[in-house]
Amino acid sequence: MSAFIPQAVIWKKREGQRLSEEELRAFVAGASDGSIPDYQVAAMLMAIFFRGLDGGELAVWADAMLRSGDVIDLSSVDRPRVDKHSTGGVGDKISLPLAPAVAACGAAVPMVSGRGLGHTGGTLDKLESIPGFRVDLTVEQFVDQVRRLGVCLIGQTARVAPADRRLYALRDVTATVESIPLIASSIMSKKLAEGIDALVLDCKVGDGAFMDSRADAVQLARAIQAIGAAASVKVTAVLTNMDAPIGRTVGNAIEVQESIDVLRGGGPADTRELTVTLGAEMLALSGVARDVPDGRARMEKVLADGSALELFRKVVEAQGGDARVVDRPEEVLPQAARRTPVPAPESGTVRALSARQIGMAALMLGAGRRRVEDRIDPSAGIQIQAQVGERIERGEPVAYLLTSRASDEEIDAARDMVTGAFQFGAAMSAPQSALVLEVLR
Amino acid sequence: MSAFIPQAVIWKKREGQRLSEEELRAFVAGASDGSIPDYQVAAMLMAIFFRGLDGGELAVWADAMLRSGDVIDLSSVDRPRVDKHSTGGVGDKISLPLAPAVAACGAAVPMVSGRGLGHTGGTLDKLESIPGFRVDLTVEQFVDQVRRLGVCLIGQTARVAPADRRLYALRDVTATVESIPLIASSIMSKKLAEGIDALVLDCKVGDGAFMDSRADAVQLARAIQAIGAAASVKVTAVLTNMDAPIGRTVGNAIEVQESIDVLRGGGPADTRELTVTLGAEMLALSGVARDVPDGRARMEKVLADGSALELFRKVVEAQGGDARVVDRPEEVLPQAARRTPVPAPESGTVRALSARQIGMAALMLGAGRRRVEDRIDPSAGIQIQAQVGERIERGEPVAYLLTSRASDEEIDAARDMVTGAFQFGAAMSAPQSALVLEVLR
Repeated sequence: MSAFIPQAVIWKKREGQRLSEEELRAFVAGASDGSIPDYQVAAMLMAIFFRGLDGGELAVWADAMLRSGDVIDLSSVDRPRVDKHSTGGVGDKISLPLAPAVAACGAAVPMVSGRGLGHTGGTLDKLESIPGFRVDLTVEQFVDQVRRLGVCLIGQTARVAPADRRLYALRDVTATVESIPLIASSIMSKKLAEGIDALVLDCKVGDGAFMDSRADAVQLARAIQAIGAAASVKVTAVLTNMDAPIGRTVGNAIEVQESIDVLRGGGPADTRELTVTLGAEMLALSGVARDVPDGRARMEKVLADGSALELFRKVVEAQGGDARVVDRPEEVLPQAARRTPVPAPESGTVRALSARQIGMAALMLGAGRRRVEDRIDPSAGIQIQAQVGERIERGEPVAYLLTSRASDEEIDAARDMVTGAFQFGAAMSAPQSALVLEVLR
Repeated sequence: MSAFIPQAVIWKKREGQRLSEEELRAFVAGASDGSIPDYQVAAMLMAIFFRGLDGGELAVWADAMLRSGDVIDLSSVDRPRVDKHSTGGVGDKISLPLAPAVAACGAAVPMVSGRGLGHTGGTLDKLESIPGFRVDLTVEQFVDQVRRLGVCLIGQTARVAPADRRLYALRDVTATVESIPLIASSIMSKKLAEGIDALVLDCKVGDGAFMDSRADAVQLARAIQAIGAAASVKVTAVLTNMDAPIGRTVGNAIEVQESIDVLRGGGPADTRELTVTLGAEMLALSGVARDVPDGRARMEKVLADGSALELFRKVVEAQGGDARVVDRPEEVLPQAARRTPVPAPESGTVRALSARQIGMAALMLGAGRRRVEDRIDPSAGIQIQAQVGERIERGEPVAYLLTSRASDEEIDAARDMVTGAFQFGAAMSAPQSALVLEVLR
């Protein structure tokens, strides 16, 4: 390490030269333990933003980030271990029905999730709206639950990928968030630490996603697959449409309720379809199902026969939550103190519904955080009454705003955002854009 | 300032968007007073490396750097004030004969110089090899001497362009030195602080310069001219060849000796020619001479009649140095304890002599600094016996290595570097490459 000169490595990357494995590992190690100062890490991140990392560099960079912390040992779990990661969307509650359903089909799902970021929601925040539900289990409790139930949903521990924590914090304040190799290595350093065999990536594209171009989403998927390949973890990427919110609920408690509807065999068609699609890919990739159609059939079955719902009940119980939520969600989940209708400004068919605008409105109502330290209002969110392709008459509610603590000004602002999120027109002749855009295996 | 978000400005520059005057000034002010942390300044420097600054942005950026510190008030000096700045070369002692010669012609030369950097020398280090010579005068002493003698040579005070000091230190450790807008603004923030009316830029191109491509040198010259134009300071840029060292000496005391030879009307042809050329441009630009040929004639005259030499004597005296140096330099200047010949490995004509290699060898002998805190050996350097175009026989010395403190290993290494710096061949039919490549007025 004594011969390692950070600025020489930054210079090489700045000039577009390939960094050696030794240089990459030394840089990530120095970024992780603090021996390389912030300003050199920041300059390197900006150089990577402009010059990228090639497949080989990226695999080493991500592996070095992974090795900066603990890797969970799931070798005692005898089922194939598979997880799903979403790049973040609006109304994206899919992990909640998906994890128990896939486990009910026979795979192990050791899921480490995140919190909401900006206008997008987070699985941990949604789960915590169930009274008592704990996501801060120890690694031992996590491993034990995966062995017993085949599924556990927790948050990232402080010992997982500390290099990512430092890089992520710096990226946020140095305008280097939107870099495909940096996004890919950040995701994979945490996912590979779960000790999984296979990963299905739900790569969101569109207005409500962090990537609005499909080309960028494909590039991100390919980068993640390259990191996976180097670590012998199979990755299937499913590119899905994120122009409109998923389902009819955006928030936390209300998204849990919609998830339970799906586990009961109901729920909105798109929420259910995405759950089945991603589950089928997970089952096929992990070898639990023969192929994707077989995976679909298995997913449909566990949602129809109640076995996925029963497993969800056991997970809630095991993680300290009030399991009565499964049967009487509206009694157990926090309810909003105020419910404000948003009337349709005109009659017509909903031609488009901006996921980003709806996400921002939900944030305004208290469903998300403006700053990292903010507390969310679990009861807050938006109930969508008219989705894309549906007809509505002027004055009927297109949505309800839910909140327990937003001010009148905030509610007014949220109403304007929701109203502006809708585009109305004549009945649509062409079908609405596909939910699943492409599968990259 | 409360609404100023540094990462939003970094993001704009990263995306190639134009920054507003307010954003640029707020960023430079924050970089100067430390309210913007190092990591954000570092990210911005790398973003500027990749995206550049356009003419308008650059003028504001440089002006904000200038205004971060004091500007010397030379309004009490009644002559036209003109300075020269060199982008740095090997054997570049031109400021020493040039400043008193131009002042002897009637211009005021308020010269603030720098120290050696890497393989290149610095005017301050050369002047300080004259026993007693002080470059750390106060601003008041500086102004007074310019009024009395028309010329003063000092180092940068701590109050000049503090923003540049912070940016320069960060650039050095974040691999963002080689950026034309950052180089141009760094130079001009310091030169404009001298309170000058006109500036001649000696823009070095070639093997021994920081810019080895002529296109880059032209771009730098144009950037500096744009900053000058916005500040109402006329700038002429002279692109000069820096493939071979200037003159026959590279070091400190020995370069003072060669400078005195030029002031006595002698010295090597190239050193003398460069002094006259740059002086003529300074005199024409400042209006002291009618035009460049008139400027040349005046320069030739003050070098021939001893008036430039006499003014140099007064400057040495005024700045505390031993003025006997002018008459008996070899007695007054520190002499090297060891003088090692480097024999020609073959007979032939010198076809090329690498300035960079010679500069690195001089550094090795103690004439320069490896780290900022190093002390130089004023007696160290290289005496060149055979310049480009000259014939030499095998075994004759092509150069002498001078040093008072280098180890045998360092001398051996320097000898190998000097030997490798020479290329021999048959007598040259074509003339050697021109000293002055282009003048941009």
